[in-house]
Formats: sequence, structure tokens, C-alpha cells
Amino acid sequence: MATKEPLVITDKHEMRKWSRAMKSQGKTIGFVPTMGYLHQGHISLVREAQHHSDLIVVSIYVNPGQFSPTEDLSTYPSNFRGDIEQLMAIPGGVDVVFHPHNLYHYGPTNQSVDSGGDKGLGRKGSGVVSCVEDSGFGHETWVRVENLEKGMCGESRPVFFRGVATIVTKLFNIVEPDFAVFGKKDYQQWRLIQRMVRDLDFSIKVIGSEIVRDDDGLAMSSRNVHLSPEQRKQALSINKSLSRARIAAEKGHVNCQELIDIVIKAIHEAGGKVDYAEIVDQESLKDVEEITSPVVFCVAAWFGKVRLIDNMEIFIRNGDL
Amino acid sequence: MATKEPLVITDKHEMRKWSRAMKSQGKTIGFVPTMGYLHQGHISLVREAQHHSDLIVVSIYVNPGQFSPTEDLSTYPSNFRGDIEQLMAIPGGVDVVFHPHNLYHYGPTNQSVDSGGDKGLGRKGSGVVSCVEDSGFGHETWVRVENLEKGMCGESRPVFFRGVATIVTKLFNIVEPDFAVFGKKDYQQWRLIQRMVRDLDFSIKVIGSEIVRDDDGLAMSSRNVHLSPEQRKQALSINKSLSRARIAAEKGHVNCQELIDIVIKAIHEAGGKVDYAEIVDQESLKDVEEITSPVVFCVAAWFGKVRLIDNMEIFIRNGDL
Repeated sequence: MATKEPLVITDKHEMRKWSRAMKSQGKTIGFVPTMGYLHQGHISLVREAQHHSDLIVVSIYVNPGQFSPTEDLSTYPSNFRGDIEQLMAIPGGVDVVFHPHNLYHYGPTNQSVDSGGDKGLGRKGSGVVSCVEDSGFGHETWVRVENLEKGMCGESRPVFFRGVATIVTKLFNIVEPDFAVFGKKDYQQWRLIQRMVRDLDFSIKVIGSEIVRDDDGLAMSSRNVHLSPEQRKQALSINKSLSRARIAAEKGHVNCQELIDIVIKAIHEAGGKVDYAEIVDQESLKDVEEITSPVVFCVAAWFGKVRLIDNMEIFIRNGDL
Repeated sequence: MATKEPLVITDKHEMRKWSRAMKSQGKTIGFVPTMGYLHQGHISLVREAQHHSDLIVVSIYVNPGQFSPTEDLSTYPSNFRGDIEQLMAIPGGVDVVFHPHNLYHYGPTNQSVDSGGDKGLGRKGSGVVSCVEDSGFGHETWVRVENLEKGMCGESRPVFFRGVATIVTKLFNIVEPDFAVFGKKDYQQWRLIQRMVRDLDFSIKVIGSEIVRDDDGLAMSSRNVHLSPEQRKQALSINKSLSRARIAAEKGHVNCQELIDIVIKAIHEAGGKVDYAEIVDQESLKDVEEITSPVVFCVAAWFGKVRLIDNMEIFIRNGDL
């Protein structure tokens, strides 16, 4: 068992300095951004990154920019020491854990920051407010992927993808990686980051890593810890019904509304509340009426106060139709 | 007289490769983004960049992302050969001219681009449309500096600063410079780029370079070429009245509305049409009622079909008040 202790860096200038020093030695850097409270899903991202890069940087930072003031920022679980131990247990380990305190607080600069006024204008201008604006940090630059940020998770979480695209841009500019790995569990996020990297000409290859499931099939998530044993059983309705829908589709049942009804009914009967259940094109994430090309079936549902997401890609050979 | 012929690079991957090769040799790179049709104002930016960097990259690219479909993209003047000759005449010259064809056309990728649908959603979502969306390139990621992009030039040109922030992000990611020089003639643009660089953690130092004026005092601009001799005379009312206002302020006339009235009256009497005339804080760009700290007096005015901008910084020692 490897027990490589990662270097923990909290300062962004130190982080960039490390990356540049390594790159000047010809090393490639793989980057796995996380919000901590790591589970096997994250570990699989690190293993994926190891396949592509000489060195691995994992960031652990709960990004206030992607939470609205009414969301669960303050209760988002954390266990930094446990995270480090899990990373040390990975064969090959990771090289750096980047663990900044606050990436929106710029401190004294040569620019005065009138956060009160900025906040007011920000509210008016964007129509959405995250915990960053709520805290008055004076940050006012946001990256918008204007189509992919809408719909699905963007519908119920209006600041979410704006916050994700922005923090990933910041982290890319600080870590300067060659590769970055994102989990396909957050499918919309993965596609949005891919598009952002293309549109903004980042010189970074974005890799999507497959969903990791517990033995019972539940997609791994930091939020699963909040489920009661009863809710956890109920939550299995998501992956079970998604699998049934996929099998049905593969057998030729390509009408999306019928497949969606299967999933909504199953989750509802189990005691969950569906936020959305959509079958969309794998790249444009636009709704599809009938499956004739690769699609992904995306679901979000509440079990008590816990909102879970999951998805399943569906590929159908044209010859089957 | 130096006659260094710059290397002309049109491919973005070639551009980045060149920059990385130079940086691996320990060279620093200064970057001057332009839309071409160079004049002495641009030349002064290059000279400023020379003070900071070993090597100089000048980009010449008329960015469709900052023009609305009703603006003057198609008539924006160009003279590529003349630009190269002007750059060659600068002592020390420049090393690279980056002259891409189209930075929004990504060609065949592994992502399908449904530009028609994207365009529709983009219109709906952002409320503004640039020549990029109008041409259906499938580009959908935009950088917004949500407070500084509003007001002044952002008021009459709603896509302008979104387009500027986005193309500068793209160019920064392609050229990867250490320094970038922007003219203070485009004061709002300069401050907005400074803020964007801070907020997105770009590792680039942004330098503001002083306005260059013709002998008669008119601020240099590529658009001046469109002025008739008569309009050109009229246009001097901008800089002359700004100077009068500054002198008045320095003498203790610190009421902004009175100073603004001087300028509006002068431009109007000369035959121009004021778009805006505002005295704002130099960093927040918020309107000021009375001058008690460093401000900048910004003006935009039409002379016939030509819209010109100019500004003057006003510093008043506290002891004078």
C-alpha cells in the first residue's frame, strides 16, 4: 500500500509556482477539482487522472459561488484529514492537495472594492445571487455557458453553473493543468466544462470519468451521508428505474415520454419527489422525443431534504430501430 | 531605424507553441491586443510593452463578439500590410503578429454544434446578440464583468464589454503572456480587464497606457479616419472642453454637474451629439457628485456617423479642497 503524503498548498501563488516548476521539468499535470468529503467516486477520478499525467493535483474547496444563499453551503460535509488519508491510500497517491481558504477574497489591492454597491448592481444585473455576492466580496466576473447552463440542474439552481464555470476557470488559471478530470455523474457539469474549455481556448484536455456506484447501485455522492437508512432504500428507485428504462430502450422502446414515465412513477412510489427526469442529447443536452442517437437519461430527485442526481447514457445501434 | 520583420502567426496552436517555447527559454512576453488599422496610439502601447517584456506579441483581430449586428463590423477599417510596416518602424520592433482568421469557429470537434438552436437560446437567455451569435458559430461561453460592463459605453453598446472580456480571455489563453497593455483611451475597457484578471486569477499583469493625441489634441482612434475635415474640427470640442473642465476642477470647481454641463454645451455647440458625459470614480466607475478623490471624466459623442470616445483623469490634492 502506497502512503505518499501529498503536499498541502493553501496559497494560490504557491500553487502556481509549484505547477510551473514541475512543468519546466517536462512533467504533465492532471487536475481533479473537488469539494472534499471524498468517496470512491472521487478516488476513481484520481485514478483516471493518473492514466494521463505524471503528477496529480486534487483541489478541495467548497465553492460559495455555486451555492445560492438558501442552499446547503453551511451544512456541506467536510473531513479534511479523512480526505488526505483516502488520497494517501490510492496506489501512486497524489502529489498536491490544493486547499485554499477563500478564492473570492482578494484582500488589499490597488483597486478599491466597493462591495456594497457591487452587490446591489450584481443583484440587479444578473437576476441571481450566490453566496459570494451575499457575502460582499467584491467579486463581479462570472463565466456563463449560456445554453448548457440552462435546464435540468440549472432550472432549480440558477446560480449553480455560473459558479461552477467561474471557479473552474479560476482553478485552471491557478493550477495550470494539462488534463482535468470530471465525473460523468454530474453530466451537465461535465459537458458544460468541455464546452467552456473549447469556447475560451483553454489549453486543457477535459476527461469524463464513469459514475461509481455502491454495491446496491446508488451513485456515490457526498450528499448520501445525509440520507436516513429508509431514505437510502428509497433512493435506489433512481438507479433501478433508470436501468429498467435503459434496457427497455435497448429493446426498442424509444419513445422518451414512456421511458420518463417509468422513472417518475418508480421514484414517486418509493417516496421520492422528482425534480426533473429528462432524456437529452449527449452533447447539446436538448430534450429528445424519440431515441435515434446517443442520449443520456438525467434525473434529480429529493428524498427528504436530500437532493440526489444520477444519469445513464443510452446508446442504441441504428440497426435495432 | 530598426526593420525587424515580425513573425506572422495565424494558427492559435502555433501561437501558443511559440509562446511556450520562448517562456521555456526564460523570456517574458508582453501582449498588445488590437483590432488593426494601427495608429500612434497603438504604437505607444507597443513601446509600453517593450519596457516590461523581453518579447512582444501584437494581435490583429477584429472581434465580431463585441459588435452587435447593427454596428460597424463590416466597415471597420483594416490595412494589414500598413500595420506590419508601422510595427517594423518601431525601434526594437515586435516579435510576433498574431492574426487569426476566426476565433469563434471551432471546426469539426467531438462535440456536435447545433448553432441554430444555440442561437435561439442565446438570444432568449442573454437579451443581447453579437455578430458571433448572429453568424451561428455555436460559441456560447461569455465572460461577464457584471458591474463594470454596465453604464457609459455599456449602455449604448450592450454586447460590447461581454465581447471584449471574452475575446481577451481567449487571447490570454492562446498567447499566455506575462504582461498585457491596454490603452487608457478605452478607460472602461482597461478597468474592466483589470478586474477580470483579478477575479479570474489570470497570472498576467495588466498595464494601462496613456492616451496619445494628435497635435490638435484629438485622441487617436481608428475611427478618426471616417471623420470629414469639418467633423474633425468639430470633434476637437471633446478634448478642448475636457481640458477646460479639468482646469476648472483643479481650481476648485468640484461640482460634477457643472463640469459636465461645460462639456455637453461645448460639444453640442460644435455640432456633435453627446452619448454620455460622466465623471466617475477611477476604479468603481461609479458616478460622483463632487470631486473629492481621483476621478475620470469620460465622454462619448457622435459626429455624423462616427462615435468617438475620450476621457481625462482628474487628480485633486485634498489640500486644495
